[in-house]
Amino acid sequence: MDSWRTAIVDAGPDHIRVKGFDVLELMQRSSFTDLIFLLHHHRLPSADERHLVDAILIGVADHGSGAPSCAAARLAASGNRASLSAAVAAGLLTIGDEHGGAGSGCMELIETGLARVTTGGMSLAAAAAALVAEATASGSRLPGFGHRVHSTIDPRVAVLFGLAEQAGLAKDGVRFARALEDAVRDRIKPIPLNIDGALAAVLVDLGFPPPVGRLLFIIGRVAGLCAEVLEEHTREKPMRITIPVTYDGATARAVGADPENEVGSRFTKMEKRLPTSFSPEEQ
Amino acid sequence: MDSWRTAIVDAGPDHIRVKGFDVLELMQRSSFTDLIFLLHHHRLPSADERHLVDAILIGVADHGSGAPSCAAARLAASGNRASLSAAVAAGLLTIGDEHGGAGSGCMELIETGLARVTTGGMSLAAAAAALVAEATASGSRLPGFGHRVHSTIDPRVAVLFGLAEQAGLAKDGVRFARALEDAVRDRIKPIPLNIDGALAAVLVDLGFPPPVGRLLFIIGRVAGLCAEVLEEHTREKPMRITIPVTYDGATARAVGADPENEVGSRFTKMEKRLPTSFSPEEQ
Amino acid sequence: MDSWRTAIVDAGPDHIRVKGFDVLELMQRSSFTDLIFLLHHHRLPSADERHLVDAILIGVADHGSGAPSCAAARLAASGNRASLSAAVAAGLLTIGDEHGGAGSGCMELIETGLARVTTGGMSLAAAAAALVAEATASGSRLPGFGHRVHSTIDPRVAVLFGLAEQAGLAKDGVRFARALEDAVRDRIKPIPLNIDGALAAVLVDLGFPPPVGRLLFIIGRVAGLCAEVLEEHTREKPMRITIPVTYDGATARAVGADPENEVGSRFTKMEKRLPTSFSPEEQ
Amino acid sequence: MDSWRTAIVDAGPDHIRVKGFDVLELMQRSSFTDLIFLLHHHRLPSADERHLVDAILIGVADHGSGAPSCAAARLAASGNRASLSAAVAAGLLTIGDEHGGAGSGCMELIETGLARVTTGGMSLAAAAAALVAEATASGSRLPGFGHRVHSTIDPRVAVLFGLAEQAGLAKDGVRFARALEDAVRDRIKPIPLNIDGALAAVLVDLGFPPPVGRLLFIIGRVAGLCAEVLEEHTREKPMRITIPVTYDGATARAVGADPENEVGSRFTKMEKRLPTSFSPEEQ
Repeated sequence: MDSWRTAIVDAGPDHIRVKGFDVLELMQRSSFTDLIFLLHHHRLPSADERHLVDAILIGVADHGSGAPSCAAARLAASGNRASLSAAVAAGLLTIGDEHGGAGSGCMELIETGLARVTTGGMSLAAAAAALVAEATASGSRLPGFGHRVHSTIDPRVAVLFGLAEQAGLAKDGVRFARALEDAVRDRIKPIPLNIDGALAAVLVDLGFPPPVGRLLFIIGRVAGLCAEVLEEHTREKPMRITIPVTYDGATARAVGADPENEVGSRFTKMEKRLPTSFSPEEQ
Repeated sequence: MDSWRTAIVDAGPDHIRVKGFDVLELMQRSSFTDLIFLLHHHRLPSADERHLVDAILIGVADHGSGAPSCAAARLAASGNRASLSAAVAAGLLTIGDEHGGAGSGCMELIETGLARVTTGGMSLAAAAAALVAEATASGSRLPGFGHRVHSTIDPRVAVLFGLAEQAGLAKDGVRFARALEDAVRDRIKPIPLNIDGALAAVLVDLGFPPPVGRLLFIIGRVAGLCAEVLEEHTREKPMRITIPVTYDGATARAVGADPENEVGSRFTKMEKRLPTSFSPEEQ
Repeated sequence: MDSWRTAIVDAGPDHIRVKGFDVLELMQRSSFTDLIFLLHHHRLPSADERHLVDAILIGVADHGSGAPSCAAARLAASGNRASLSAAVAAGLLTIGDEHGGAGSGCMELIETGLARVTTGGMSLAAAAAALVAEATASGSRLPGFGHRVHSTIDPRVAVLFGLAEQAGLAKDGVRFARALEDAVRDRIKPIPLNIDGALAAVLVDLGFPPPVGRLLFIIGRVAGLCAEVLEEHTREKPMRITIPVTYDGATARAVGADPENEVGSRFTKMEKRLPTSFSPEEQ
Repeated sequence: MDSWRTAIVDAGPDHIRVKGFDVLELMQRSSFTDLIFLLHHHRLPSADERHLVDAILIGVADHGSGAPSCAAARLAASGNRASLSAAVAAGLLTIGDEHGGAGSGCMELIETGLARVTTGGMSLAAAAAALVAEATASGSRLPGFGHRVHSTIDPRVAVLFGLAEQAGLAKDGVRFARALEDAVRDRIKPIPLNIDGALAAVLVDLGFPPPVGRLLFIIGRVAGLCAEVLEEHTREKPMRITIPVTYDGATARAVGADPENEVGSRFTKMEKRLPTSFSPEEQ
């Protein structure tokens, strides 16, 4: 097998370098958030850039134990105590387009809009209005808008955009996200940007590609999942969780009695002395 | 890198063989359960052996949508619709010593007891009584006994043991499991064998090593998880699930106000115009 | 929280029923493949239908330890021995559109084509030719065609279609798959159907919806992954695997020396006595 | 179902608080590492404490694409492109006692030793010597010692301990780890502490319980895995990876020809016109 190739880490017996930076120097002079920035960019951040990424990671880390990611991690922590990583992974697997994934989707939307502004000479407002009209026409949802708990306003958005503006780092990404919010209000109804939409705008302005919107959500949320898993281990008994379920499917029927299934089962003769139901008489 | 080695599958451009059997012949002459048996044994099963493994796999496949494995799979199916395998994997990750794992633990227990019978000349009853006494003394749980729903009797046990006895395949594994059940009743209280304990006994008699107790649970349960995931996709909206949670931790406090944490935060000056809470006035 | 609902399993203290069938009766009279069929259909299979599903599950269970799914499972088995389910899940997570997922994609393709035949009055050949032309025009790949190892012919296809034809169960799904193969040959070049394309055709004829193409691959492959994980545990030492990697990224650089990053790091003063590289002098 | 309980996050329509701290204030005044500290401790860190945790997270984030965690993530990224979280999870699942898990094991070892010092009046050196003697006697490995690449010295250890000493935060945990290193050298042979052993010592001194040794490895490594997955998506074609494998198992054999398996297969009559091997004549 040929060697794989990578431009991320160069590790040997006498060195470990991340995109050229000695890991020993990074350990002494940088923060974990600097490293996260570096791993997904081609350079280290400035102090203001670091501050924005810190705010994003903090904003998404944990939104309560009942969110799908935390609940799945706790179910795995409850049944499979031997592996902390398995429980964290179970939580992570709930993250997708529908949960935690709107950031990358919104980054794609913003990039599409900004490309039209740059190459097509449209205004931000016109490009935003066109995208909203297209989404309305096709019945698709605009990623980064609305929140099932914070339905009128998500104050994390104001904080993140405020930090970006104070630092002079709010550029066309943030402006376009605001233009989209205006277009949604005018053409549909007022639906506020959520934290995923806000981080998408800021990450576009920081020069990250769309998948990083989801990857930063993953990195932040894993920190929260680790705490959730540890709490489940230390505060709760194993297997404490059963979700109540109501059955509404087919009524009781016997093998071989199905008119569509005349051939019946492979074992034609049923041994009489074995139970065929949970009823006490037969046990 | 050196080649890896395997004794399972030999695959090349002109052949695929599983432990020596041509996959084309297996596809025509064998059942999936035959293949599962072969993958974990050194040969194909007889018809009676196949029947027992079929009964085990059917018995563990699905015990309701509210079990931890099914619930975690549904949470992932709800948040991450793009990947069916991710949702099934989330369910699978809940399987461990506490959920679905008692089979392998009980197989180890039976093997320990039978080794004492063979090498130490003890009777089955004496070896079982000793193991129960040791578990009682150390406060450890006996894997394969008791069920949170089927607390008095799990009728799947009678079916599985009945099939093994009819076929003449119930040997020392089944006998020792029954001896353990008697010893538990006499020395602790009546706690019935559950399906995990029953499949453990049968799998010992079929010549499988202990980990297969858990692996067959995994294979059977994955079939159920696949159906649960598909039902979640087809019957439910994404992100329908939030678990109700009550917070009972530290009361509200401000950064920098912690007496143990005088140094406070890295950002000493707080910008006043940014919100510091979700209260409407400040938004 | 409201109860969840399900039409799959009804489990209570005195019964476990799968789509209405008592699990005790299924354990005695049915095979695991019958249950898999039932879990994804509304009834049990006939003997011939069971045979086809058995052949599919056998055909996909394991194609060698070096396939992505098996290799990922072995890597997890090597680093995380405490959890069998975690290792199987790691292998499962490699399954997607690019690995093991062509079955569901091909089922969608066949359903699209058959819908045009039914509602549009096209012949099978014309509908197939149109789909191939559309795929060629859009540059998209036809799922279910071609195999990186079995490039000229995948004999599992002939076996599966042969079994379906012998049983009289090869209907429009199989016919349309053959029509697609002809259209590919005539319009592009001869590219044979692979096992994913063949199982797709058969599953359409058995009345399953497209996601079942992927789910049956998952169920079959999990059986193989379980054997791979157990072999890794029993034959190999932990952490035996390192993949050879060549670094081709940024050259060595120092924190703060980056012209794009004048602000440098957060820790301005570097303590001199700590090492800044792995070179022996500084250690 | 009763509400779950948590002491981590209190989230409602008008507030999100992490252990009492308003998330909006944390976003403005704290770093992501502060939050990670808070999630696993009962308070925020001082600047020096934060620096140590930053150094730990940076030190474990990525050690090259060929490590089991990165390789498994790349295999999943290669086969299952639709889900970024699935690929990161596949990498995460390789983390256990044998890979990335030595930190928590070493924390338990240090806590055991320090408990003997505190309650038994032993010296650090005597307690360390006793633990090494016990491990030698039982043949168990000492977690946190030795590295397959950095076999003579892991310079990350000197950096981390240097930072702890400069800040006055190196206490009995670090001292005991050094005592263990001395005892290993004297009683076995010189085996240096590795990064897992070093972070274990520092985390004990910072007041974290043992599982946090593994959880911080998970959090740090997930940052690296995200970058590995993104590089696989952007630089490589899907399904590029096949690991070379050599088969050394059972030789070719026919179903029914097995002397141990006289009953043979379920399908007694083999249809002649179907292929039974990949040989060209039969295709």
